[in-house]
This record gives sequence, C-alpha cells and structure tokens, in this order.
Amino acid sequence: MNYSTIPLAHTLVFLCRSFGIRQVVISPGSRNAPLILGFTSDPFFECFSIVDERSAGFFALGLSQQSGEPTALVCTSGSALLNYYPAVAEAYYSRVPLVVLSADRPPYKVDIGDGQTIRQEGVFEKHIGFQANLLQDVSHAVDSYRWKEGERPEEAEGLLALQAERQALNEREISRGLHLARRDRLPVHFNAPFEEPLYGTSDTPVVAPVVHREETLPESEPDWEALGKKWRSYRRKIVLIGALPPGGVGEEALAFLAGDPSVVVFTETTSNVHHPSFFPSIDTILAPLERSESRADFFEALRPDLLLTIGGMVVSKKIKQFLRSFPPLEHWHADPYQAFDTFYVLTDHFGIGADRFLKALGSGVQPGSSSYRKPWEAFREACRKQRQAYLNQIPFSDMVAFQDILARIPQGAQVQLANSSTVRYAQLFDMHPTNPVFCNRGTSGIEGSTSTAVGASVGSGNQVVLLSGDLSFLYDRNGLWNSYLRADFRVIVINNQGGGIFRILPGKEDSAAFETYFETVQDSPLAPVCESHGLEYRCAASREDLQKALEDFFSPSAKPRLLEVKTPRKLNDRVLLGYFDFLTSAIPESL
Amino acid sequence: MNYSTIPLAHTLVFLCRSFGIRQVVISPGSRNAPLILGFTSDPFFECFSIVDERSAGFFALGLSQQSGEPTALVCTSGSALLNYYPAVAEAYYSRVPLVVLSADRPPYKVDIGDGQTIRQEGVFEKHIGFQANLLQDVSHAVDSYRWKEGERPEEAEGLLALQAERQALNEREISRGLHLARRDRLPVHFNAPFEEPLYGTSDTPVVAPVVHREETLPESEPDWEALGKKWRSYRRKIVLIGALPPGGVGEEALAFLAGDPSVVVFTETTSNVHHPSFFPSIDTILAPLERSESRADFFEALRPDLLLTIGGMVVSKKIKQFLRSFPPLEHWHADPYQAFDTFYVLTDHFGIGADRFLKALGSGVQPGSSSYRKPWEAFREACRKQRQAYLNQIPFSDMVAFQDILARIPQGAQVQLANSSTVRYAQLFDMHPTNPVFCNRGTSGIEGSTSTAVGASVGSGNQVVLLSGDLSFLYDRNGLWNSYLRADFRVIVINNQGGGIFRILPGKEDSAAFETYFETVQDSPLAPVCESHGLEYRCAASREDLQKALEDFFSPSAKPRLLEVKTPRKLNDRVLLGYFDFLTSAIPESL
Repeated sequence: MNYSTIPLAHTLVFLCRSFGIRQVVISPGSRNAPLILGFTSDPFFECFSIVDERSAGFFALGLSQQSGEPTALVCTSGSALLNYYPAVAEAYYSRVPLVVLSADRPPYKVDIGDGQTIRQEGVFEKHIGFQANLLQDVSHAVDSYRWKEGERPEEAEGLLALQAERQALNEREISRGLHLARRDRLPVHFNAPFEEPLYGTSDTPVVAPVVHREETLPESEPDWEALGKKWRSYRRKIVLIGALPPGGVGEEALAFLAGDPSVVVFTETTSNVHHPSFFPSIDTILAPLERSESRADFFEALRPDLLLTIGGMVVSKKIKQFLRSFPPLEHWHADPYQAFDTFYVLTDHFGIGADRFLKALGSGVQPGSSSYRKPWEAFREACRKQRQAYLNQIPFSDMVAFQDILARIPQGAQVQLANSSTVRYAQLFDMHPTNPVFCNRGTSGIEGSTSTAVGASVGSGNQVVLLSGDLSFLYDRNGLWNSYLRADFRVIVINNQGGGIFRILPGKEDSAAFETYFETVQDSPLAPVCESHGLEYRCAASREDLQKALEDFFSPSAKPRLLEVKTPRKLNDRVLLGYFDFLTSAIPESL
Repeated sequence: MNYSTIPLAHTLVFLCRSFGIRQVVISPGSRNAPLILGFTSDPFFECFSIVDERSAGFFALGLSQQSGEPTALVCTSGSALLNYYPAVAEAYYSRVPLVVLSADRPPYKVDIGDGQTIRQEGVFEKHIGFQANLLQDVSHAVDSYRWKEGERPEEAEGLLALQAERQALNEREISRGLHLARRDRLPVHFNAPFEEPLYGTSDTPVVAPVVHREETLPESEPDWEALGKKWRSYRRKIVLIGALPPGGVGEEALAFLAGDPSVVVFTETTSNVHHPSFFPSIDTILAPLERSESRADFFEALRPDLLLTIGGMVVSKKIKQFLRSFPPLEHWHADPYQAFDTFYVLTDHFGIGADRFLKALGSGVQPGSSSYRKPWEAFREACRKQRQAYLNQIPFSDMVAFQDILARIPQGAQVQLANSSTVRYAQLFDMHPTNPVFCNRGTSGIEGSTSTAVGASVGSGNQVVLLSGDLSFLYDRNGLWNSYLRADFRVIVINNQGGGIFRILPGKEDSAAFETYFETVQDSPLAPVCESHGLEYRCAASREDLQKALEDFFSPSAKPRLLEVKTPRKLNDRVLLGYFDFLTSAIPESL
C-alpha cells in the first residue's frame, strides 16, 4: 500500500473508505497526485480515469444513479473543477450523491498570479449539499526542523499542536460532509489545499484519522389514523408519480392505489412504476387539454380534490398545466428529502419514503365507492385507440421511429433517455415493465446524457440503451472518450439534423435565422464519431431500414454499437402537432 | 426590424448596441428566444450560433481577445449557463471582457420542480466583474386588462408604475454592467427572467430605453520626477513582461529599456514584445538554476534590486522560483487593472498602461553606467549555444518537433498555444516578431484552447495556427463543431498519446497506475475528428515526415487543415530533462 505523506490527502482517502465510498472517478492532474496515489493504490476502491471533467462528472452521476451510493470525483486545481458544475447541479436536483474532491494550491498561492489557480472555495455554493474548505497541513513546516529525537525546538512544538488541531478539524468536516452526502443524497464538495512535494508516499499512514459519526434523527411518523380518514374522505384523488428508481414503490402499495376507484394514478416512463389500472403516457391523455379551450367544462369535471405526488421531477408539461389550471384542494408530497410546490397549492410534506408512506396509509383504509376513475379510464381508452389510428396513417418520422424503437428494446435492458425531444417523445408510449428508465431531469440539460449512460452501463452491469437526439449526442460526444464502454452498450441517435424540439414550440417562424439560431440545423456525420471511439456504426433512413436494423441491433457483439436514425427534419413537427390535434377529437361529448 | 415584445429583452439588445457590442455568440434555446429575436434581426450585430455552451464561451473569448471589445454570450435557462463557467473564469483572470446574458424563468418558477431551472442568480459570483439579477417585466399583467383608451382601472395604474420603476432599475443596472465590462475588461453577467409568450415581436420597440453613462475617473499620475530618480538609483533592474497583446509596448518605450545597461528585460512568447537586447526563452536561461544548488552564489550575483513587471500572467515557473529565492528590494507593477503579488515583495502598483508608464518614465531619465546586464548577456549566449548543440544531437521528440514547427510558421500568422506542455515547450524557443502569440493563461485550463483559437481566427481575419497537445485537443474537440472554421485555419497536434507533461514532473514512477491516472495514455485517432468537422488530415511520425509535411501545410487551401505529429511517448521526458541538465554546464566558472 502507498499512503500519501500529506496527512490531509490520506485522511480524505481513509474517510471515504470508512464511509463505504467504493467508486472513484479521477481526472488527470498534478496537484491532485496525493489523492490519486491514495485511491489507486488501495484495492478497496474501483477507480476510473476520465480526462474531460464535465464528462467525468456525469459518468460519476451514472455510477451513483445505479448504486445509490456516493461516487467520488477527483480533479486538479484551477478551472478543472468548474467543469463539474453541470453534473453537480443535475445531482443536486436529482438527489444523486456525489463527493467532489478538488485539489487546490495553498491559500497563499491564490490570486497572486500563479497558474491553474482560481477561487475554488465554495464555487458550487448555490447547488451543493455541503462544502468545506479544508485546512492545509503544516506538517511540512514541522519536518523542516529536522531535529534529533528529544531535541525539538519550541517552535516545532507550536507547529505540532497546530497540525494536530487542523487534522482534528479536517476529520470532523470530512466526516460530516460524507455523512450528509449519504443521508441527504446530495453532492458535497471538499476543497483540499496541498503543498509540494505532491508525490511522496509511505508504507505506513502518516496519521490515523478518526471517523466522527453523526446520529441520524429518526423520521417522525405522521398520525396515520387521521391521515387515513382524510384520504378516504376525498373522493377524487390524483396520484402523480415523478422520477423514481425501479422498485421505488412495492407491490402492496401499488395494489392499494389500484384497488381504490377514487384514485387516478399518472405515471411517466421515468417513474418506473407499472400497473394495468394506472395512466402512463400522460401527454397522450392530456394533450387535448391545451387544444380545447372550449371544453374547459370537461376538464373541470376531472379536477381532483386531493393530489398526492411521490418521486422526483415530473416530465410532462401538460399535467403541470392541467393541475395549475384545475388545482386540487390539497396537495400532499411524500419524500424523505424535499417537496416542491410545483402547483402552488402544496399543503403537506411527509418526510418519509413513498413506499412506506403508501403502505402505512393503505393498511388502515378501506376504499369507498367513487365514480372518479371511470371517465378517466374511458378517456384513456379512447386516446389509445386514437393513437393507434394515427400511428397507422403517418409517414416515417421521429414519432414512428420512437414507436418502433421502444417496441424492440430487449426485455430487461436499461433505457437512458437524453433530454429535450427524446424524453418527451418517449412519454407518448408505454414502456415495458422490465425496462428501467432513467433521464437527467434534475436540470434537464443536454450536456451529460451520454456520459451518464456510460457510467450507468458500468454501474449496472447490464445492457444499457441510450436514446438521444443529434444535438444532445454531439454535445456530449466526449462521453464516449474513455475506456469503459461495454460491448453490450447501445446508442440510438434520432437524427433530425438539429434541435427538432424548436420546430414544435409555438411562435416559431420558418426563416434562415430560425434554422440557424433556434433549430440550429447541422449535418455533422456520426460515423466518424463511432470510429473515434470504437463503436460499430449503423444507419437507417426509412421505416424499412429501421425495422431491419433493429432485428439484430441488440444482439451480443464484440464492440458497442450506434444506430443513427435519420428522420425528415421538416416533417417531424407537423406529425407531432397533428397527433395532438387528432387526439382532441377523442374527447367524448359528455362524461 | 423585429423587436421583442418583452421590454427587458429589447432593453438588453438596445443597450448592448448603445455600448458598441457588435459580436454575439448564441446557443440555442427557447427561454432565450426574446434575445435571439432581437440580436439576429438587427444587422448592427454579427451573430454566431454555437451549440455547446462551454465551447461558445471560449469562442467568444477568442473574439474579444482579438477585438479588445466585449462579446455577448446568450444562453437559455438551466444548466446551459454553468457550461460558460470555465470561459468566464479564464476571462476574469486574463482580463477579457465578456457579457453573459442568461435567460431565466420568472422567479416564481425557480425551485418548484420546473424543468431546465436552477438558481442562476450570481452563479459566477467568485469570478465576475459585475452581476445583476434583472427584474421581470410586469407589462404582461398590465396588458391582461385589455382596457379601452381612457378607461384604465386603478390596478392597471399601479402596475404601470411598477413596470416603469422596474424598467428604470433594469436600465441602470445594465448600463452600469456594460460600462464596467469595458472599463475593467472583465466578464459581467446579467440574468434576465422572461415570462411566456417568448416569441412575440413588434415592428416598433415597446420601450425606449435610456443609457445611463458613468463617468470614468481620470487616471492618477505618479510623481514622474521622483520615480525617475528612484529608477535611476537602482543599478540592477529586471523588467519581466507577462502576457500582452501585440503592440502592447511601443518602440519608444522598448528603446528606453534596451538602451539602459542596468536593465535586463525578460520576455515570453505570450509577451508579444521583441528586441535583440532582450531575454526571451526565460526557461532556457534559468533552467540551470534548479539544477545547480551549489551555484547559488552565481544567481545571488544576478539578483536584481528592482523588479518591474508589466502585462498579465507569466508562464515561466523558473523565473518565479528565481525571483522568490533571490527577491528584489522593490517590485513595481504597471497595469491599469490589477497587480498580483506574485513574488511576495510587491511595493508599488501604478494604475496606468505599461506603454504610457514606460514612455513617461523614460522621458526624463538618462541611463547611468551599470555592469548588471553584461554577465546576463554572456550567460544568454552560452545557453543559446548549448541549446543548439543539444538540438543537433537529440532524436525526434516533442522538443525537436516544436523547434521545426515554430521555425516554419508563416510570417504574420497568429499562433494560439494550448496549455500544459505546449505553452511550456514554446517558451524554449524564440518566436519570430511578426507572429502574435496567444494562450489562455488566466486559469491555464486545457478545456477551451481550440474554441478560443477558432474564435480568434474569425475575429482576427488572419491565418491562425493552433498548437496543441493531444489531450487538450481531444478535450475541446467541440471547438471545431460550428460553421465558422476558416479555410486558412491550421491545427498542429503534438500527439504523445497522453499527458506528456506528467512524465516530466518530479516524483512520477513508471507503473500501470501512473500511465492510467497521471499520464492518461490514450490512442484516440485524430483522422475521424477531422472527418467529423471537415478538416484535411495529415500525419507525421518522424522528423523527415514532419519537415516534408510542413513544406506546404500553411499554403492556401479549400479546407482547414490538421497535422498530427506523433512523437515517442516514453522518450520526450528524457529529452527535455536531459536538455536542462545539458544547459547546466553552460554556467561559467565566474562572472
């Protein structure tokens, strides 16, 4: 074993180990050498090397997303750290634990014109669960005395005391931050100043750090009896499930919801919750809303009395619009970490997990009768029929491609969705229950989906299929620039030659300026990107091509594969908007 | 002309124009539509579309680096903004003016679970010259009354007053920030919340914004007579010139320095200052220092009494080490913006430009006699001879490649250096005076050199030659992902298959862990990157190849070109370290 001779470096590595952080993503540098030496020489840690820190951040996020455990990120001093910020913000809003360890120069070298030096302390202040600017060791100064045994000068005694004090303070801060990363599922940041020499190692640790354990307060229990009564008293309830990892809600809780006719459960692909009586593909059901102002009476009749939300971010803009226009009397949110007042009527936040909440709630409550769900079910079936009728009549386009692709993803494979059009198209279809679905919805950025998918593929040990648009894929092409691509990794890029989503937005006009600055038309070829990173490249430009390509696209292979699906740039928006128009005619005359 | 119907958007565009900001780099989005519409429909502005905001930030930095004027950056809401941070930090420390305009959702949509929403206010707080969280317009609310002429309800009057107040406050903040960006040459950030609808335009502006001009205080004049006396009284002076744009010091001032035998002027390639009596290639002259502890007496004899620094960041670590070990009695810095206490002995900061300072200082001072420069000159010549002798005897390697490349760059072409090894190797050779040299030394990051070079190529209108290492080039490959590559743009990548600089650092050991986590050995091919972005690809793996390739590499062409120079990964460090050893023998017996 190699231990860094810098006490702070050894302490960080030691405490990461004590807190069970096993995966470490390292970007190269010199100032962070003391940390690299410590992590890479201890077989307890699984280390990864990723050059581009922006990609490294999202790769780590993918690992943590799968393990549920914090992943450490290690970078050198200077602007390197700033490249983590997009992933840190995503982790912050998605509640994914990350531990950022930034090496820094000693404080006296900051803002005096030295290279690779910025003000690293607290750069993520607005989006971080905990941050500490750790104290520089003074042990070098102690060593410089080179005294003989038993002949320490008085100054050395003072320095030794100061070093002991700093060591204790650092241990306390690091323990606290690592505890919070785990407890609150948030990114945390430790900034660690290291003095040269940076490469010194020793066979024995220079310090024996102490773990400071903090007690986690027991979760407070709601008054279940009163709550159950209230729940039962509301005869019109919507349960809206945001992003959740697979298995986030157990069978018992799902059965309780499914068995209550006063409850309508809306799910998204990212909810990872499935039940025949639930309502997936929210947008397919709610699209008529924004198209039929004249039918406000119909939606008024569907307004819930109680809204219960569980899970994280919600993709559908239409459900937000519906619930803001027709707000419930009460809005409850069950989540151990946070509650967003998304609909401006939040009344209760129950700080426990959704599964526990539903099981406890369901155990004492018998559902009464209600005619709330029935019209929704009729409406859902009408919309499904309309969807199929529409799909049977439209030409090859983004929408058709998504239908065909989603239908062919192997059972059990994990699906990673890029943002923007991709995640929205995916909401229009029902996912197979065996396919876990993930998407960076914390900040909904397009800069890290590929890196996240690659990290998730390593972390899950399963086949991962990344669905992406062309802009998002090209933006994060560095996500493929590492040596951790699994042979079973699959990428499907729906290439509509630009930001197709902007064609769909209201208010756009067809002009050169629109194509350049909104749609951002581009024709970057994808084959060379595959060649750069060792992926097999395939291409489909028609429905026949696509169906043929999908036949063996997911089969075992020696190399990862990418399938480019070229869709007609100027047709996609008309197909999609036509779909919502078509659905509008599914609204029945009366309930 | 199209004017956004959102008053704040129109005000930002109008005031940018009033303050003479002509170049605007836009990344696609919807929330920023009001700004895009405004900038792209006014022919006063030259607009660019770059998808990856990290690259867009550095592209804009390249534009401002050439024009000396602020460039505007426009992005949508959410994590998009965070990707600007590396460029913002670089601009902050390099004193390059940038105007970041981030579109945001209205404050009531932040932290309530909406997509693409983060806490944008003040995210760059630690590295920004000015920031303002602008106030959301309430004019929509006013419009919603739809009153008839002469029939305004009282509430509308209140809203109109509020809107007028917000408009005035926004105008004042924007004027102030734009004034400071120009005066202080720093990045500034305006966060602008926009409510939907975002795409509304009008033929006439909805407001007539007012420019608030701030007076710039006149620069205070030093007491030139006293200063001249003091200057003359020091018989041993070093003038160290950091990064400066070409023409940063005029002929008259240079002649004054050159004519004084008590002055030794050290320059770097990034100083863009040339005179036969100056001392370029600092490291070649000072390398023996760290190799010859026993000759401390020799360097002690060279210690200056006065150090005058001008310009920005200094690349050479060796000059920093020399001046910290053998500090001058006084350290003066002449710069209108800032003074870093790089050597911990800063005594005076003269807040005026270097050229003005030197001209004023020189006008009243006659140089006296001094024997200070002579031994330095003898030493410089000895080192130059040693360098040539060494270059004649070494095998093909990074060092030989740099010699050959720098000797063949066409006169007048601009050189952009990537960071890490590239900028350090370039310091070992003398540049031709007609080649302006730039490098992102503010934070010395490797993430934006290509984007900066592309921006500079557009901004300068001249041939730009980017010299880069392989890691830096691949890191910022998205810098080539835009439609602004000039046909005369040239890239030379010195490919040593990893972070060659780490082989040179003291303390490294040869192990698998070293190669993976420090050197980061990689073999990503560059030809597909060229294919992706429409560059001609050439390759050289020997000195003969390289010399042949350079013969017509810079000649006019229909497409930009990239030359990959493959150097022996495990030889480069030995050649470089051997060079410094070899130089050490140039130290004469006595002065």
